[in-house]
Amino acid sequence: MRADVLRFSLPDPGDVSGLREAIEAGKIDPKEIVAVIGKTHGNGLVNDYTRGFLTLSLALLISSKTGETPDAVRNRIPFIFSGGVEGVLSPHYSVFTVSPSEAGTSGEKALAIGVAFTPEFKPEDVGRQRQIDLTAEAVASAMRAAGIESPADVHFVQVKGPAFTLTDIVASTNAGNKPASDNPGKLMGFGRAASSLGVAKAVGEIPAVAATEAAVLKDFDLFSSVASCSAGVEVRVNEVVVVGLSSKWTGPLTISHAAINDSLDTAGIHKAVEGLGFAPAIQLSAQDAKRIRAGFVKCEASRDGLIRGKIHTMLNDGDIDQQRHIRAAVGAIVASVINDTAIFVSGGAEHQGPDGGGMIALIAERAH
Amino acid sequence: MRADVLRFSLPDPGDVSGLREAIEAGKIDPKEIVAVIGKTHGNGLVNDYTRGFLTLSLALLISSKTGETPDAVRNRIPFIFSGGVEGVLSPHYSVFTVSPSEAGTSGEKALAIGVAFTPEFKPEDVGRQRQIDLTAEAVASAMRAAGIESPADVHFVQVKGPAFTLTDIVASTNAGNKPASDNPGKLMGFGRAASSLGVAKAVGEIPAVAATEAAVLKDFDLFSSVASCSAGVEVRVNEVVVVGLSSKWTGPLTISHAAINDSLDTAGIHKAVEGLGFAPAIQLSAQDAKRIRAGFVKCEASRDGLIRGKIHTMLNDGDIDQQRHIRAAVGAIVASVINDTAIFVSGGAEHQGPDGGGMIALIAERAH
Amino acid sequence: MRADVLRFSLPDPGDVSGLREAIEAGKIDPKEIVAVIGKTHGNGLVNDYTRGFLTLSLALLISSKTGETPDAVRNRIPFIFSGGVEGVLSPHYSVFTVSPSEAGTSGEKALAIGVAFTPEFKPEDVGRQRQIDLTAEAVASAMRAAGIESPADVHFVQVKGPAFTLTDIVASTNAGNKPASDNPGKLMGFGRAASSLGVAKAVGEIPAVAATEAAVLKDFDLFSSVASCSAGVEVRVNEVVVVGLSSKWTGPLTISHAAINDSLDTAGIHKAVEGLGFAPAIQLSAQDAKRIRAGFVKCEASRDGLIRGKIHTMLNDGDIDQQRHIRAAVGAIVASVINDTAIFVSGGAEHQGPDGGGMIALIAERAH
Amino acid sequence: MRADVLRFSLPDPGDVSGLREAIEAGKIDPKEIVAVIGKTHGNGLVNDYTRGFLTLSLALLISSKTGETPDAVRNRIPFIFSGGVEGVLSPHYSVFTVSPSEAGTSGEKALAIGVAFTPEFKPEDVGRQRQIDLTAEAVASAMRAAGIESPADVHFVQVKGPAFTLTDIVASTNAGNKPASDNPGKLMGFGRAASSLGVAKAVGEIPAVAATEAAVLKDFDLFSSVASCSAGVEVRVNEVVVVGLSSKWTGPLTISHAAINDSLDTAGIHKAVEGLGFAPAIQLSAQDAKRIRAGFVKCEASRDGLIRGKIHTMLNDGDIDQQRHIRAAVGAIVASVINDTAIFVSGGAEHQGPDGGGMIALIAERAH
Repeated sequence: MRADVLRFSLPDPGDVSGLREAIEAGKIDPKEIVAVIGKTHGNGLVNDYTRGFLTLSLALLISSKTGETPDAVRNRIPFIFSGGVEGVLSPHYSVFTVSPSEAGTSGEKALAIGVAFTPEFKPEDVGRQRQIDLTAEAVASAMRAAGIESPADVHFVQVKGPAFTLTDIVASTNAGNKPASDNPGKLMGFGRAASSLGVAKAVGEIPAVAATEAAVLKDFDLFSSVASCSAGVEVRVNEVVVVGLSSKWTGPLTISHAAINDSLDTAGIHKAVEGLGFAPAIQLSAQDAKRIRAGFVKCEASRDGLIRGKIHTMLNDGDIDQQRHIRAAVGAIVASVINDTAIFVSGGAEHQGPDGGGMIALIAERAH
Repeated sequence: MRADVLRFSLPDPGDVSGLREAIEAGKIDPKEIVAVIGKTHGNGLVNDYTRGFLTLSLALLISSKTGETPDAVRNRIPFIFSGGVEGVLSPHYSVFTVSPSEAGTSGEKALAIGVAFTPEFKPEDVGRQRQIDLTAEAVASAMRAAGIESPADVHFVQVKGPAFTLTDIVASTNAGNKPASDNPGKLMGFGRAASSLGVAKAVGEIPAVAATEAAVLKDFDLFSSVASCSAGVEVRVNEVVVVGLSSKWTGPLTISHAAINDSLDTAGIHKAVEGLGFAPAIQLSAQDAKRIRAGFVKCEASRDGLIRGKIHTMLNDGDIDQQRHIRAAVGAIVASVINDTAIFVSGGAEHQGPDGGGMIALIAERAH
Repeated sequence: MRADVLRFSLPDPGDVSGLREAIEAGKIDPKEIVAVIGKTHGNGLVNDYTRGFLTLSLALLISSKTGETPDAVRNRIPFIFSGGVEGVLSPHYSVFTVSPSEAGTSGEKALAIGVAFTPEFKPEDVGRQRQIDLTAEAVASAMRAAGIESPADVHFVQVKGPAFTLTDIVASTNAGNKPASDNPGKLMGFGRAASSLGVAKAVGEIPAVAATEAAVLKDFDLFSSVASCSAGVEVRVNEVVVVGLSSKWTGPLTISHAAINDSLDTAGIHKAVEGLGFAPAIQLSAQDAKRIRAGFVKCEASRDGLIRGKIHTMLNDGDIDQQRHIRAAVGAIVASVINDTAIFVSGGAEHQGPDGGGMIALIAERAH
Repeated sequence: MRADVLRFSLPDPGDVSGLREAIEAGKIDPKEIVAVIGKTHGNGLVNDYTRGFLTLSLALLISSKTGETPDAVRNRIPFIFSGGVEGVLSPHYSVFTVSPSEAGTSGEKALAIGVAFTPEFKPEDVGRQRQIDLTAEAVASAMRAAGIESPADVHFVQVKGPAFTLTDIVASTNAGNKPASDNPGKLMGFGRAASSLGVAKAVGEIPAVAATEAAVLKDFDLFSSVASCSAGVEVRVNEVVVVGLSSKWTGPLTISHAAINDSLDTAGIHKAVEGLGFAPAIQLSAQDAKRIRAGFVKCEASRDGLIRGKIHTMLNDGDIDQQRHIRAAVGAIVASVINDTAIFVSGGAEHQGPDGGGMIALIAERAH
């Protein structure tokens, strides 16, 4: 098998002309698309409908090319979009394809991709043990599907889980259930947290017995450095995309990841860059930057209100949500290192990387 | 003469306990304060009252210590505050003092500070030739006051000029005048632009004949790399602080500056850092970072909607003002290099550095 | 002919289940839909993609039921959506249908609807004479199509024209054109203004010779009390829907309108209500409120910063756009009178009603 | 005793020229000021510093006129400001004075004012039994001070309690305490809720035994129709102002209040208006409106996401806080009835009026 990743600019959440042209030019076989991960124009919070708009637009495009129904496309392909292109960030989407390899494997490990879905979650499941465990199972299933044998070869696990509006939460409560929060935005945080613990459990970053509901949003020493979890009202299951390396795959791509210790941790970013074989540099040259196929970053405003001992104001702000602040900041730092603004940067890094930090994963063409 | 710069955290725009304690501990003589430049909690736009709140709080504190009236303090000391601590930025204020030197000059140039004020401006003056010319005169006056002989020794000129609310603008229009814009936010941009051209004229970065009203917000090839201009409703004159180097001064501090070519121009930032005598490094060590006394940055969202060929969304955003986006982004990049989040980062870089970029100036203790 | 108007709740811009169920229950023949006007969840400004999302969702639904292509549906039916359900407002869409009348006309005038489209506009056409004149022609064409003989029988003209992003505007400028503004949001205002003057010209509210480009955003004494104009990036032509009364039509519905003189002008609102035959009341009873089929309101923050002599802050606000403020306020006042929150309330009332005010039109079942 | 209430426009939170002129003209004796309640320009959330700015400005003004220290003024006079003048609302402050009566009492009850303060609260006290009970005691104390004998004569109790930033909350938690919420905004809600239950207990609107910590933000059937509670970082105690009627007082003013059942409950508003002796009217005439001296409104977005059966979007909005939405909406409705935009409208009506509604109190000159 051979994996490829192509990235397209998104001028408008309904404008998928980039992928259309690639399909029509024969660069992408729409039947080989296994996942799409992207960054859209909205606020990334509960009332962000740009994710759903892009999902619909892509499902229509792909179905028109493959002959599937749009619903079949949506059931087959995880569309994982995070809203919020604050600051220098550029809206885009990365299309993951898997094709039969023309050549035999080279012995060198190559990019490998696996996809899986959990069953549906209801508001009362979010942040609970059920979400942790079913996510862990889905990760294991996706690893098997990808032929990734060792957890050490897993470099990125993207999870998109459900968000619920107030109406949904109230209905659940009225039906006698107890959602983890009655606040739609906070419930999204519970979902990201439980999903992350599920990933950490699956890849052995934490002991299985530690991946409990009791630890959700409590014990931040438990985390995954490969998990990137988001939530949106447009899905009802956890969609799981595992990306790693496998000697069973071929192709030109590789992947690297690193934990980010805090908002200013450029060392983590450079570690991920150098893991791709680039020489140390303050900023990748324009030429080197072209080798990067996709970047994924999680980050968060530190809970204690301090960054390296100085106060930040992100958590007290009633005008701009903390996630928008931190995406703008950490996204810009990463962009300044990899010389590229089309990065998937997502806030809400609960249990995704160290507390107050996050994680980064980069996919690139291998150096020759 | 000997200049010093001390920086204080600002937990709340009314909390000036940092300076109070420094005065009471004898670290600062309040009579020697010649300027205060800081970053407050507001949005940095027309309806940002945190600048005025801090101004009042400092005027009261200093007057209580010097015996001056608060009004006399405000007339004597430029209080130049920019709102907006987006992302990782930390609210703070830097207090500039000038004291008689105990020692003779060493032959080495040291930090020199000069202050001047223009006459009052009315809404109809903003962005006009009068503001350009009177600003240039004030810069020249401040240079003389500081004993800075060569324009090449000017590294930073901070200007704070008036902003006007809609009510003011309407009153001006009704009185038969023609303000450059009927939009309060846009008029602030005109003021920053004209002030910048005045600085560029004064320090010879552009020919005097080119510093015309016709160039304001039109000819962006004309700019100053040392100018940092902001606007606020709490002042009615242009307050001008010139910071440079002079062999007539003594003390431990030096200053460096550089143009920033675009939002990702880390080379410009590193140039300013290395101009202070630091060895090249991705990020200053915590130890080196302590040598930095203050950082000043101007930046802006590129007018063509592109950063290195990729679209950004800052100028189309109806939820978050473009200045808030770009401060979060460029502020974080600078913070990641100098390992310090208490930086003065200001948007609205019209004619302050190259179009789509900006400028940076750093004050630090000299290396030994 | 017989016109009908049915209104559906919009829980999410992609959730058109309300119309789907009505079609599947036989309450609406999708081929008879001639226009849809609605209020979506976004900010109503340039980066509001909820309008496009709903448009796509409706086009897909209708095309799946009629066998047309989605593009054919979009070309046939004006989808006119305004973003922003601030405060108590409820997201919804009103579906206008025209069917052959089963009965003869009764002599009593009934609701009549006509639709027309202008040719495409480019950024440089917005706010210009071409937009004024082509809009006036489209209104006349729609009146003829609707069999509305007298301008006095026109009670509501909804126009949706194009908005352009910064990228579009820069491209136009680089091609040598001169768009009326280089600010995307401001250009939307020019478009609404020119379209309104076109309507006023067509229905004789102002002399044809007064409907000039020179008056756009200048002479606010020129206005239409039946025009409601909005702009969005998802259209390139002016879509025009004329609603009035005609003795050639039959059916149970009627329409009334009134000018709104300022933000507190409840007299205007009550005039429109009483024009429908309701007895004067502070608030319609729940029973009476059911007779209302749709409400359309334009409003704006007064340009002089005052409402009945007291200052408002809407035009100085850098956090919340003035249109969001005024929609929340005037929308709530109207809702409190007609006892219904599913109202189409749109800001940006340039030349739509008196300066600082706006207009209101209400469609209701006739009293028996 | 004789109470008076004068209202001043607030062009800027630092501009107290209105009161200054009234003092200098002899209209107000600054020593007779017993409370100031106002509406400032900020967002009304944690990072709203306009309240503190106005407090400082007024304390300075009054101290300069009375010879007290500013701190003494702040300890003597409750300054209770709520941020947020959304929509048509006009920033202003109402100054309450108490003077010795020149005339004897007339037998007719007149406006009576009493003030009291609780001890200081820490983050861990907010929303707890201690805050409930000490608030109730302060209300009783203020009633006694005002000579208000019957709870039925209490028409308005304004409470301003402390808010805490994240830093404060973290410090409290680290010290081993358990604040009711780790979210600064949510903790403000706990404080308003507990304070309201304290008021309800004091005036007998709920049984004393029901006023428990367990009911806070849980049992919304328990509420006060005279309580208006807000929170801000600039105070550390609950400041309590009780306003009612007493035959021991004289003067021209009266007060009326009513519960508001939901966001569209115009009946409640009209009940309060008519309680002042005005004839029923859709909108007070400009002449009648002048009799209104001050208006106080609490309101909230209904927790179930519905208003009279139709969805609202206020609780899902990541761009504009729910309190800003509802203030704009309910504030406009009240303004449209009383023909006045300078109203104190405050969101966060937990236990202040019926769930999903709120309360209104109006002070006016008595009809002759």
